[in-house]
Amino acid sequence: MSSRIVTIGREFGSGGRTIGRLLAQRRGVPCYDREILEEISEKSGFAQQYIEEMGEYTQPGFLSGLFSNRFYYQGQSNEDIIWLYQRQLIQELAERESCVIVGRCADYILQDREDVLRVFIHADLEFRARRIVDVYGQREAAPEQRLREKDRRRAAYYQFYTDMRWGDARNYHVSLDVSKLGFERCVDLLSDL
Amino acid sequence: MSSRIVTIGREFGSGGRTIGRLLAQRRGVPCYDREILEEISEKSGFAQQYIEEMGEYTQPGFLSGLFSNRFYYQGQSNEDIIWLYQRQLIQELAERESCVIVGRCADYILQDREDVLRVFIHADLEFRARRIVDVYGQREAAPEQRLREKDRRRAAYYQFYTDMRWGDARNYHVSLDVSKLGFERCVDLLSDL
Repeated sequence: MSSRIVTIGREFGSGGRTIGRLLAQRRGVPCYDREILEEISEKSGFAQQYIEEMGEYTQPGFLSGLFSNRFYYQGQSNEDIIWLYQRQLIQELAERESCVIVGRCADYILQDREDVLRVFIHADLEFRARRIVDVYGQREAAPEQRLREKDRRRAAYYQFYTDMRWGDARNYHVSLDVSKLGFERCVDLLSDL
Repeated sequence: MSSRIVTIGREFGSGGRTIGRLLAQRRGVPCYDREILEEISEKSGFAQQYIEEMGEYTQPGFLSGLFSNRFYYQGQSNEDIIWLYQRQLIQELAERESCVIVGRCADYILQDREDVLRVFIHADLEFRARRIVDVYGQREAAPEQRLREKDRRRAAYYQFYTDMRWGDARNYHVSLDVSKLGFERCVDLLSDL
């Protein structure tokens, strides 16, 4: 199989980004993650943090009314403008070089390409709660609640722009539970593909 | 990791059963699939075909009304009796020996065991349509329609008895698209785990 490009979707706190970096290192290719936000920010003029939040704070209740007729809607929302920059940038990256792309619905954006391996990384709640405290230093009383909220937002954003269910195995070629398999084994396994 | 038992959930026509057999051969352990139906039939007195159909013809519309109060329901339906036999048998198998178990919600039934690797096998519609014609000799005008119907039924049965979403990556440790990866690579990969 000749997958030049690996896209990694992931649950918040699962370590999908870490797996992306390690896999890219192993294969000697670049890994794009926050770099995508930086470049969209540069091109669009929106602040990076604003773009990042756009990817999470999309509210399904508010937007679902727009969904069915968004193509008839006069003018574009900021979300839509950012989405178009994001889509164009990810398509350009895929055209240009072998790489690993983390998040930003890259799996969906590149779904028509044969040379893409679509990966989803997830982990149980306990693993993720421990990890966001250890790695990000988030010392909230209830990290589980924060994780559920983050997942909910990511799922809403994904579903809005792709009309597919986030986390459904059938949207990906390989889905791995890193809390069961461990980082090393996930990277080994993806590297072999 | 010491996964003595591998459970394989799968989309109809994806070849999950074939992967289960090959994996079991490779590891030198038994693979349980239709044997489970046979044993439930023997113990319960229900015909094998009836048991098989029970696992597919559960209608979410009809049953959803029963779901919330099924534990208060006087007496048990045939579906429930079969479910109890199935659950007991799968728990006994897992207790007794290392093995591969295909389908029958074994992933859910054994979810509290640490020594289980939960696998989901899926494939794109084109691959599965070609496969049910080639392997099962089904020469219907619209195999895709039959596949969608089968998936819908499997998902309804799974959701009814497990209250989890069939095909959601987060219910499994490893999910693989066999139409992308091929049989050989899927078996290699699972065998390494």
